[in-house]
Amino acid sequence: MRPGGRSIHQIRLVKITRHFTRYAEGSVMIEFGDTIVICTASVEEGVPRFLKGKRQGWITAEYGILPRATHTRNHREAARRKQSGRTLEIQRFISRSLRASVDLTKLNEYTIILDCDVLQADGGTRTASITGACVALSDALSNMQKKGQIKTNPMKGLVAAVSVGIVAGEAICDLEYIEDSIAEIDMNVVMMEDNRMIEIQGVAEKEPFNQKELNTLLGIARSGINDLFKAQKIALAHA
Amino acid sequence: MRPGGRSIHQIRLVKITRHFTRYAEGSVMIEFGDTIVICTASVEEGVPRFLKGKRQGWITAEYGILPRATHTRNHREAARRKQSGRTLEIQRFISRSLRASVDLTKLNEYTIILDCDVLQADGGTRTASITGACVALSDALSNMQKKGQIKTNPMKGLVAAVSVGIVAGEAICDLEYIEDSIAEIDMNVVMMEDNRMIEIQGVAEKEPFNQKELNTLLGIARSGINDLFKAQKIALAHA
Amino acid sequence: MRPGGRSIHQIRLVKITRHFTRYAEGSVMIEFGDTIVICTASVEEGVPRFLKGKRQGWITAEYGILPRATHTRNHREAARRKQSGRTLEIQRFISRSLRASVDLTKLNEYTIILDCDVLQADGGTRTASITGACVALSDALSNMQKKGQIKTNPMKGLVAAVSVGIVAGEAICDLEYIEDSIAEIDMNVVMMEDNRMIEIQGVAEKEPFNQKELNTLLGIARSGINDLFKAQKIALAHA
Amino acid sequence: MRPGGRSIHQIRLVKITRHFTRYAEGSVMIEFGDTIVICTASVEEGVPRFLKGKRQGWITAEYGILPRATHTRNHREAARRKQSGRTLEIQRFISRSLRASVDLTKLNEYTIILDCDVLQADGGTRTASITGACVALSDALSNMQKKGQIKTNPMKGLVAAVSVGIVAGEAICDLEYIEDSIAEIDMNVVMMEDNRMIEIQGVAEKEPFNQKELNTLLGIARSGINDLFKAQKIALAHA
Amino acid sequence: MRPGGRSIHQIRLVKITRHFTRYAEGSVMIEFGDTIVICTASVEEGVPRFLKGKRQGWITAEYGILPRATHTRNHREAARRKQSGRTLEIQRFISRSLRASVDLTKLNEYTIILDCDVLQADGGTRTASITGACVALSDALSNMQKKGQIKTNPMKGLVAAVSVGIVAGEAICDLEYIEDSIAEIDMNVVMMEDNRMIEIQGVAEKEPFNQKELNTLLGIARSGINDLFKAQKIALAHA
Amino acid sequence: MRPGGRSIHQIRLVKITRHFTRYAEGSVMIEFGDTIVICTASVEEGVPRFLKGKRQGWITAEYGILPRATHTRNHREAARRKQSGRTLEIQRFISRSLRASVDLTKLNEYTIILDCDVLQADGGTRTASITGACVALSDALSNMQKKGQIKTNPMKGLVAAVSVGIVAGEAICDLEYIEDSIAEIDMNVVMMEDNRMIEIQGVAEKEPFNQKELNTLLGIARSGINDLFKAQKIALAHA
Repeated sequence: MRPGGRSIHQIRLVKITRHFTRYAEGSVMIEFGDTIVICTASVEEGVPRFLKGKRQGWITAEYGILPRATHTRNHREAARRKQSGRTLEIQRFISRSLRASVDLTKLNEYTIILDCDVLQADGGTRTASITGACVALSDALSNMQKKGQIKTNPMKGLVAAVSVGIVAGEAICDLEYIEDSIAEIDMNVVMMEDNRMIEIQGVAEKEPFNQKELNTLLGIARSGINDLFKAQKIALAHA
Repeated sequence: MRPGGRSIHQIRLVKITRHFTRYAEGSVMIEFGDTIVICTASVEEGVPRFLKGKRQGWITAEYGILPRATHTRNHREAARRKQSGRTLEIQRFISRSLRASVDLTKLNEYTIILDCDVLQADGGTRTASITGACVALSDALSNMQKKGQIKTNPMKGLVAAVSVGIVAGEAICDLEYIEDSIAEIDMNVVMMEDNRMIEIQGVAEKEPFNQKELNTLLGIARSGINDLFKAQKIALAHA
Repeated sequence: MRPGGRSIHQIRLVKITRHFTRYAEGSVMIEFGDTIVICTASVEEGVPRFLKGKRQGWITAEYGILPRATHTRNHREAARRKQSGRTLEIQRFISRSLRASVDLTKLNEYTIILDCDVLQADGGTRTASITGACVALSDALSNMQKKGQIKTNPMKGLVAAVSVGIVAGEAICDLEYIEDSIAEIDMNVVMMEDNRMIEIQGVAEKEPFNQKELNTLLGIARSGINDLFKAQKIALAHA
Repeated sequence: MRPGGRSIHQIRLVKITRHFTRYAEGSVMIEFGDTIVICTASVEEGVPRFLKGKRQGWITAEYGILPRATHTRNHREAARRKQSGRTLEIQRFISRSLRASVDLTKLNEYTIILDCDVLQADGGTRTASITGACVALSDALSNMQKKGQIKTNPMKGLVAAVSVGIVAGEAICDLEYIEDSIAEIDMNVVMMEDNRMIEIQGVAEKEPFNQKELNTLLGIARSGINDLFKAQKIALAHA
Repeated sequence: MRPGGRSIHQIRLVKITRHFTRYAEGSVMIEFGDTIVICTASVEEGVPRFLKGKRQGWITAEYGILPRATHTRNHREAARRKQSGRTLEIQRFISRSLRASVDLTKLNEYTIILDCDVLQADGGTRTASITGACVALSDALSNMQKKGQIKTNPMKGLVAAVSVGIVAGEAICDLEYIEDSIAEIDMNVVMMEDNRMIEIQGVAEKEPFNQKELNTLLGIARSGINDLFKAQKIALAHA
Repeated sequence: MRPGGRSIHQIRLVKITRHFTRYAEGSVMIEFGDTIVICTASVEEGVPRFLKGKRQGWITAEYGILPRATHTRNHREAARRKQSGRTLEIQRFISRSLRASVDLTKLNEYTIILDCDVLQADGGTRTASITGACVALSDALSNMQKKGQIKTNPMKGLVAAVSVGIVAGEAICDLEYIEDSIAEIDMNVVMMEDNRMIEIQGVAEKEPFNQKELNTLLGIARSGINDLFKAQKIALAHA
């Protein structure tokens, strides 16, 4: 039996609050159960140096976690003057995933920065970040269209992400912290709305896995992600 | 006429939400109008090296601001691997203020870390931080008593802080960003419940000030801070 | 037609030189075509703090790349006083993969550090690093047995890794730089000798992928990795 | 009885040596008793980016302390690759105070950097820095006029600063280290020549203070600062 | 008797492998016995800011050492985010020596970066670096001539370097680690082909030295360096 | 004709002021003409980790330069969070030189830190630092004897250092900045009282040098250093 009485394929209760803060072009608070992330999208003129003159825009992400988002307090990365490898790995993952959802050549020379800051962490912070950042990005792109900064909406479709894993021999969806910490296999999957994959990262934490197990996990991931698309669409349907 | 139709002595609408996140010993979201800060109190065993064996505890604060808490995005301090002078100055200010509210010799050898993270900034982030951190600290100390970590509550009383200033020749209370940016004089005042001062920082941004102006500002501060004490007490009165 | 006339499933010429440097407990130079990596294994007494007293050992990896390993010179990370996100991501990847190949509870309280330094980079530096580090690790473990630092060999089996991808619609194995830079999909796969997976990382660089494409890529990866196991075994068979 | 037999309102012996080093546009060694600070003013063409094109100049300060300026040696900040929060707080304080003494719109697009380096620290290093830097600034501005870099002298008047505090229940002026370390209240006051305040920072180190105590302290500060203005004027009167 | 049966004036076996890696304009692996260094020369357009418009080029060097180049593993400088004083001292030494061998005014506005990375360290890494970097530099300059980036070869002649020292009262040439660690006097000498000196650094590790000892050491150095010039010329004579 | 009418072998006017600051165990201000350095010696209990239990003490040096010690202002190293290669090279040079003057086995487990901070720089800051630090060290050692921290004075003798060079074909002693900047050859020499050398660093800035030129320079250095020993002895002869 999973915590909270969830079935093995069931994702946690998802809440998406748009316009969470006032100033960002897109601002979303997303909750996957007890995991809470603020995702903001900031639109800035110009592109990084390596793209200058290439007639395209850019999307990048940054990730942070408040010191006491977790059970015991972690040091503040700014105070240590160092972002951990985990932080950098996650923000590169979020960046790639969201970049894949947009036709950058239709973004003109704008950069959109997606800040994903974890207020509370109970597993799945990177998948919640991607799922929430996608909604913030959508809002920012609509905003750009209204302002005339871009003509057409360059978004190819929604993206969402979920973690899946094998715990005590059972394949389950959307692991919370207590499950994640004992998982034999841990996998993060990012998909487009047509269920094609943008990124997949699977790690054998305790025991290697075979292709059959991989396929089982992908099936569960697909189901969970489709539920996330529903939550995103409901949120976006309301002003 | 002030923004939002406030009178010159009136503080903004204050909201204090306790138990905002789950894991911290104290967790408060405080809103001074559009300024929103999460204040958490984390209890850790042990004290810094310079206090070892001195039979007392310690209280310290850290301050951060989400990159898009402001009108335009600021860089992330962790990514720049440097905390700004402003950040360090503010967290030292918060630390001193809260430390003054507690009898450290009754805290045993525990350290309480107060993390103040600004989700949205519209002026007064340091005064909101102190006012909210005081409530989080109170919750953490009650929690310690329940667990038997301390015998008696070492809190000497509440502390609260407000900014006051002179804008267009008029002394006003609790400046929001648009007021702060044009203020002639800007002052932060921290008080105990008996209205004695813990800290006062006054800066002539445009024009020096005399003692009469200082006294006027302190009177306004006293009134605003007393309203903050009421808000703190209401919040603490409810479980 | 691939560069060098390779077939789509064919890995590059692999050369594994053991005892490349004198002082390390394991030292391997591995070449995947023009990609050249030095992998050394260093045995140190003690474990990181979070493992103290847990009666187990630890394996970790560090990754570096000489400034002129690439077509144009990159800055030296030590001189910039910062390891890039890419570097940290890769060394975490190598660490996890090698850790999975060893029963850490049989390693006593020793730490083995695997340094993977790229002398020349033509794609696949992280997969070459894993494949070479495995041989260096094997040598270091034998060395520890000889010295009586461990009783039994804690290695569960060899690990090897290869990159696969889709280039111009075709699934290919062991991409070199010129292929990697235009790949639609890029995937790194790490396997044990029984072909179960330790880690899989797939990224849609240009176009999302479906499960059929994923399975094709995994099949190719399996074939390439099995060739790498042969090369490792030949190298290990000779003193 | 105070150390050195001073009365409670009396400042320490002040010595101001102009032209202390050769190369700076202004160079002053200031002594407040055993506290010794070298203040240099350096004139540079150009202004920081945020002021470009705004037809004004800029004044900023940096603060440092030699490792063995104190009773026991402190680490060298450059060697630790970090300026402490205290250092940054002090240099921001000095910057604001001196900036207030000059009409920046008459400074053309020049930046004046005030370096305050403490050779020996016996309390009051920040107030000595402000008082000495004002003289160095005055010399630098005269120098700029001579060179034709500015037409009129943009200085609005002298500024000086003193610390005041309550020690053993008694309000005293210009605390030396041994007094500062046991003070109940510690306050730094910066004034213009007309005794209007530029900045005031008061901290209850042990016991909160009321408005009457504040006013007493400000009165003492005024008296001490007026003595500092005399010392500055005597120094400036001699070539 | 010296290790390996060398006579007191004899340098270790020197091997110089040109074209060691593929991409650099000059790439040399040099071995002084068990000391192995990769020296690459990278040609970049442009010069550092302080040389802009001065119609000359620039040559600079960077030095690194793989973590397990030594008997026990050293930390990775990039991971510590700091280059040691020793590293910076050595790379400044290499830079000066190679710069002295070239007429920078004939280099046009190009910068040549010499990366010296130590794969294995058995004493003399800085002298091997200079000797190898000189060959890499020569190759890079020939390459520039072929490409028409420069008209004439700006090299004034070869440079080579050797360490000499007094060990157990005996003056010896080209110290290996075991000798270096017990040397009473340690000296590095860099010469042009005419045996004039470019740089000399002599340190009394245990006992001061007089001019006679210095002259003896210089004589030995001359002999060793002349052997190095032969090795360089043989290497350069073969395509 | 040299600046100030000096003869080619003549050192600048040397002034050594002992007890310059109050708190250090040794504190010296040394002037070589317009070069002014404060050298303090701080005695601390304990030794660095690599010497623990080896029954000896340690001597180390740190070097800094005030931002406006020079003609144009240099950045503050603490603010850049980086010590330059030049700084590190110099402080290693000072450390080695002073360490050579003391029998560390007679220093018990104490560390003496020599801080050399340049107030004004007109060439020769490292040689002035060594010469001044030697006097500060001598004072600190006497102080340790008085306190009973050591039984006998472990100093082997005085050390002093001077720069020599060839300017316009002429060998000269104790170069000031204007000479140093155009020198063909630049050499720093450190000697014991018996004129044996502790360290010698010679660099051909423009033209290589032969042994005869080296010997001429060493002769000049000897004469200059002997004058420095006189100045040290006069300073030490007076309480």
